[in-house]
Amino acid sequence: MLMRKKQKKQRNPSSPYERKISMYSKQIVKNCANASFIRKMFEKGLELAKQYGPENVYDFSIGNPFAEPPVDLRERMKELVDQPGVHRYMPNAGFPDVREKVAAFYSERSEKPIPASHIVMTTGAAGALNVLFKAILNPGERIVTFAPYFVEYGFYAQNVGAHLDTVETESTDFLPNIEGLRQAIQPDTRILLLNSPNNPTGRIYSRQDLEAVAGVLREKSAEFGQPIFLVSDEPYATITYDGHQVPNVLDLYEHAIVVNSFSKSLGLAGERIGYIAVGADVPEVNTLMDALIFCNRTLGFNNAPALAQKVVAEYLDVLPDVADYQAKRDLLYKELTALGFEMNLPEGAFYFFMKVPANFESSVDFANYVADKHQILVVPGSGFGCEGYVRLSYCVKMEVVERSLKAWQALAAELGLKK
Amino acid sequence: MLMRKKQKKQRNPSSPYERKISMYSKQIVKNCANASFIRKMFEKGLELAKQYGPENVYDFSIGNPFAEPPVDLRERMKELVDQPGVHRYMPNAGFPDVREKVAAFYSERSEKPIPASHIVMTTGAAGALNVLFKAILNPGERIVTFAPYFVEYGFYAQNVGAHLDTVETESTDFLPNIEGLRQAIQPDTRILLLNSPNNPTGRIYSRQDLEAVAGVLREKSAEFGQPIFLVSDEPYATITYDGHQVPNVLDLYEHAIVVNSFSKSLGLAGERIGYIAVGADVPEVNTLMDALIFCNRTLGFNNAPALAQKVVAEYLDVLPDVADYQAKRDLLYKELTALGFEMNLPEGAFYFFMKVPANFESSVDFANYVADKHQILVVPGSGFGCEGYVRLSYCVKMEVVERSLKAWQALAAELGLKK
Repeated sequence: MLMRKKQKKQRNPSSPYERKISMYSKQIVKNCANASFIRKMFEKGLELAKQYGPENVYDFSIGNPFAEPPVDLRERMKELVDQPGVHRYMPNAGFPDVREKVAAFYSERSEKPIPASHIVMTTGAAGALNVLFKAILNPGERIVTFAPYFVEYGFYAQNVGAHLDTVETESTDFLPNIEGLRQAIQPDTRILLLNSPNNPTGRIYSRQDLEAVAGVLREKSAEFGQPIFLVSDEPYATITYDGHQVPNVLDLYEHAIVVNSFSKSLGLAGERIGYIAVGADVPEVNTLMDALIFCNRTLGFNNAPALAQKVVAEYLDVLPDVADYQAKRDLLYKELTALGFEMNLPEGAFYFFMKVPANFESSVDFANYVADKHQILVVPGSGFGCEGYVRLSYCVKMEVVERSLKAWQALAAELGLKK
Repeated sequence: MLMRKKQKKQRNPSSPYERKISMYSKQIVKNCANASFIRKMFEKGLELAKQYGPENVYDFSIGNPFAEPPVDLRERMKELVDQPGVHRYMPNAGFPDVREKVAAFYSERSEKPIPASHIVMTTGAAGALNVLFKAILNPGERIVTFAPYFVEYGFYAQNVGAHLDTVETESTDFLPNIEGLRQAIQPDTRILLLNSPNNPTGRIYSRQDLEAVAGVLREKSAEFGQPIFLVSDEPYATITYDGHQVPNVLDLYEHAIVVNSFSKSLGLAGERIGYIAVGADVPEVNTLMDALIFCNRTLGFNNAPALAQKVVAEYLDVLPDVADYQAKRDLLYKELTALGFEMNLPEGAFYFFMKVPANFESSVDFANYVADKHQILVVPGSGFGCEGYVRLSYCVKMEVVERSLKAWQALAAELGLKK
């Protein structure tokens, strides 16, 4: 006892100050500690590459498009570099001509046109969601989303002191659970956050699904006396297969807002360019737009990057090389399901959400095992609010897919999966 | 009475919902309403340009460098557009080679070198400050700054639930008020925020000033048992006159952090590129860096714009055309003080903080008067936490300065200023 007391009095040699948990934000330091698995995964990838050579590591963990932006987009970008005034501050919502072009893009595809004043250019979809949440939510209010969901949503909610509630979806198809949604909505739920095509499941919500969702939102908006906003996060909207299309939510629900980015569609992930498009019938829309523009400025974005704004405005309807993604999807799906792995065929995006084989207790165990034993990197489903699955990104070169097949075969044999 | 009751029951026709203040964030809607004067100023500028012609409006309200980025920087930018992988996601802290170059830049100018791991690339200085505040501050903790101060600081503090306390400075010179600082620091004050060269005063804090400030911070850090960080916001660091230089705070105080941007120095304001540099001796620095990188990601920035990162890394010690700013400073100072207007000679940045003539009750009254009567646009000091002054930006073309002189003369005559 005496010894322990003595030890307690010793100060942490790395800091001359007494303190409770940390001298930095307690919440953020805690978040960093919790986020350490993803970092370990990343570090494991680097280690494995050193140990086995990068050609013997199969990294399906990352959604970072490796294709360069289209050649003509890059040529245009070079021209724009010299356009007078292009690198200066513009209004915080973005260049007026860029907002016009995005509004026109939506208006051509909508029953109800929206004006340029309903568009705010943002630093990617991540910036857009942070701006939206800050503009709409009071601390303590609630966002609801379907699980599995993009892991960052929880942090974005936390940034504004809001709660993220999740609705479990049917594990065989991950389609909207309508009754679950009805029960999850509380009097202070202000936003339903949808992600379609979905990261991690690759699911696209159909027009019918969305109409059912809108029905519940209308019912609950009326019951609680305030609109519930449908925020549709659509960075994968142009990556769809087999004729599937992402329905325009601005037509389907009167309180809908779309968030988008050009990270995946144009290979501009690092350039941080996206936008918010607000539906024609959103109530008190001028107040909302003022609030969005104010938050775009004061959260520290100031404005979306200038050169990127100008160039994407001219490439709004350019599609990525979907055939290339589709070839990888088809090959991996055929080979892996034949080996006995269980997964749905994605309708969009570039992810499989694969069931963890029964041999493992958790998605983390499985992810660690396949990394250590077979140099296959995947992300545990627990990070997406859905245990029992792992995410596989096929946003990789075809040679990685092809080379990985022998590793998947060895894994399946080892686990006794072959049916 | 009866009528009033009836009116109260009528609903707002723009919204079918009952609600208390707004259906959006109450704090943000309130902020938007308060920020409306600056918007009115902006709209007034547009109106005046229509009414009198743009050549008869003298807009000294904005700090938006009109000079294009250097020709060779733009040429290099065009080459980088085609560099493989340059537009992809990179680690959230920035490209490793870019962080190396920024660290080397500081290390060459410091007594204690800092490693690349002490640098985080950010979307401008505004993004940097939001990331820093989120990483360091717990809700309810305090930031202190000298008034007058950049108006956005208050909103950045509010974003993390922190309080911004201000220390009045001596109104004739705006130098740090050391005794005021000592009294303003409370047990939960975690950051002193400095802006040098200062917006709006143009003041550069000398080495002596900063040593006195550091002395108070050391004294109070020891008294309250936790470090108080000195955050130095330096976007104008390369715009200095008459041999003045901005001292390196990383050498002067053991808990110093520098925030910078290339908006003013390289004419890249719209491209949103800056960084955070953390001093060599900051305690538990790995925890802080993890927290900064986590916040850079989860606040929605993800990373600083990729192409801009690459190009500024090669132009770290390029200076803007200071002689051009200096010519405008010297001409305006000579002419305006000769007319009887009172102002200090700025040591850096491109602003005068001019005393409001005794004829006016407030800085807003004066700003409105000079806009309406003489088409001169300035920003009221009340926005910078310092009533009795207006800010004049000389980040304008020389012809605007020259054309404005007759308007200033007429104004001085009207106010009976000539001594």
